[in-house]
Amino acid sequence: MTIDLESISSPARVASPEEGISADELRLAARNHGMPLESLHWDITPAGLHYLLIHYDIPAIDPTTFELVIDGVVGSPLSLDLDAIRSRPKVTAVVTLECAGNGRARLLPRPVSQPWLTEAVGTARWSGTPLLGLLQEAGIAEEAVDVVFTGADHGIERGLEQDYQRALPVTEALREDVLLAYEMNGAPLPPQHGAPLRLVVPGWYGMAHVKWLRRITLVAQPFDGFQMRAYRLRDTPDEPGVPVTRIEPRALLVPPGFPDFMSRRRVVRSGPVRIEGRAWSGWAPVSKVEVSIDGGDTWEPADLERAQASHGWARWTWTWQSELGSYVLACRATDASGRTQPLGQRWSRGGFANNTIQRVPVIVISSEM
Amino acid sequence: MTIDLESISSPARVASPEEGISADELRLAARNHGMPLESLHWDITPAGLHYLLIHYDIPAIDPTTFELVIDGVVGSPLSLDLDAIRSRPKVTAVVTLECAGNGRARLLPRPVSQPWLTEAVGTARWSGTPLLGLLQEAGIAEEAVDVVFTGADHGIERGLEQDYQRALPVTEALREDVLLAYEMNGAPLPPQHGAPLRLVVPGWYGMAHVKWLRRITLVAQPFDGFQMRAYRLRDTPDEPGVPVTRIEPRALLVPPGFPDFMSRRRVVRSGPVRIEGRAWSGWAPVSKVEVSIDGGDTWEPADLERAQASHGWARWTWTWQSELGSYVLACRATDASGRTQPLGQRWSRGGFANNTIQRVPVIVISSEM
Repeated sequence: MTIDLESISSPARVASPEEGISADELRLAARNHGMPLESLHWDITPAGLHYLLIHYDIPAIDPTTFELVIDGVVGSPLSLDLDAIRSRPKVTAVVTLECAGNGRARLLPRPVSQPWLTEAVGTARWSGTPLLGLLQEAGIAEEAVDVVFTGADHGIERGLEQDYQRALPVTEALREDVLLAYEMNGAPLPPQHGAPLRLVVPGWYGMAHVKWLRRITLVAQPFDGFQMRAYRLRDTPDEPGVPVTRIEPRALLVPPGFPDFMSRRRVVRSGPVRIEGRAWSGWAPVSKVEVSIDGGDTWEPADLERAQASHGWARWTWTWQSELGSYVLACRATDASGRTQPLGQRWSRGGFANNTIQRVPVIVISSEM
Repeated sequence: MTIDLESISSPARVASPEEGISADELRLAARNHGMPLESLHWDITPAGLHYLLIHYDIPAIDPTTFELVIDGVVGSPLSLDLDAIRSRPKVTAVVTLECAGNGRARLLPRPVSQPWLTEAVGTARWSGTPLLGLLQEAGIAEEAVDVVFTGADHGIERGLEQDYQRALPVTEALREDVLLAYEMNGAPLPPQHGAPLRLVVPGWYGMAHVKWLRRITLVAQPFDGFQMRAYRLRDTPDEPGVPVTRIEPRALLVPPGFPDFMSRRRVVRSGPVRIEGRAWSGWAPVSKVEVSIDGGDTWEPADLERAQASHGWARWTWTWQSELGSYVLACRATDASGRTQPLGQRWSRGGFANNTIQRVPVIVISSEM
């Protein structure tokens, strides 16, 4: 019997216009999870509420026998156990991570993959040692152009058996704020976030932050592995497209009032309502957040607090004098590079980097009801 | 303007035969999450991997001003802050929790609600003080029949605005192993698991373990609140039905080999494969676990370990001499009360307590491939 691995993978496709969420998408949604939006209330996302996107299975790695290898075009390859990594200088950084596919399930037509609505985000306090120091210790050859990060997670995508692998250009990998993290929010990294060691690349979408990191390889040719070809902005499967890199600006608000269990529609009692949310961008600090109660037709400025960390989200607030009726709350972030959020959709075949504004329908009822 | 709260709730319904997962179901699936089945590997589910089903929003409760009220038909009502609760005798118990709706999305026709596949389970080490001691301190009136537990979570279901409320019969509430828990796996309760205080009722489905517990009220009449009417086994909306209480037996296995990202289909290399899993029941200890490689036509006994706690799951293993081909692995638990898992579906209108066997399609490829 011959088994064709391609027959095991579901083909890449876009859902037909009236098609409900498929069994493939549900299987992913039942495993992975977003951050419930009321969690925007916390500066640091409590453990277990941070979004999770796991391509294959969560590996169970024994930290006592774990080794990280640094090899390729280096002066002297390194092999380091966890104690050796922990004995290096320790840095802690607050970083907002977002899945490149956040918002995918709101696109029309809908690319079939993990069906995120708007909640694939989280902010954690990551502690570890700078990658730069270890690369310098290994000695970076002049011909190095890419740094390839290999995880211990193993699976198939589009018929190709693989360990999860992503590369950074050497110039990005040598940034001082790129970390090999072994702690999250002051505790050892949980299994689902890459224990015992993961990469953190502040400002980049989640696919770059390789989890269960086991090997770092410097290469003299641009790395063209599966995940480099998958995470690209393109309209059709055949065009080369543009790599997905940094996080586009986004603001999200805590849905006010209280929800219906099933529809998640929101109900607010009339009167002043404090609206709070967070905003972030991987390109530049957020410079402005605006709020709308008519779904984006008109906008008012929100009060924006300074972000507590260069790659963490910034808190913002706005007071709504709510009156009886039906509204669609929306918010929009603009960053210092001039990037902002579109009111319409920014479609791509993979559903990546689409930062359409959030829209939250709200019913205001009498405060005496 | 008059707003009808019923118009805000989605109506109770069953999906039509060909209907994909709806927007309502996706919104729930993006918030709530199951336990990725590879996590069955751990005796205690690591924080963040335990299943979560949250009816409304996660409340952010200030633990420094928190008070638990015990009132109703008692000798002397109590009001206790967290320090007072922590100063009572502390007990730790390993308890397996499962959502009553686990498996709902596999039913035909599919009841429309949180679309669980087979993964709405988790096992934690809960620490807190026995409820019994506090009830005795308050003094239980002779006429008390039910104990009503009220959470701080607030929302609408089927047009009815409510705090989440569930009752236990007095006889169950007075069991020595019912806990008011303030720690999970040795750490303070995380917000999404009910911080600062939740009820733990070993052996019962998740709906009984009221989170964000703020009030305990003894009543002289049977409590008939919304959640008591909702969590019932019935075939049509009009019949009274039977209350959902204890967890039906279930075995789950860690899907072997490695997955395809999208289809989650499993691939195994031929040769001996160690299959491991867990089994539990809320009615009696698990007495037998069987494994099948033909989807349930024939069965072989697995090696069952003794559960480490009376209401925790038990580990089991089985070695599969795998050969090239396509298989459907399945497993089935039987408990000491004689309850077992059906091969077909056990349908009810709410999709509750359906413990149909798990089926895991696996492709075996050459070990040299």
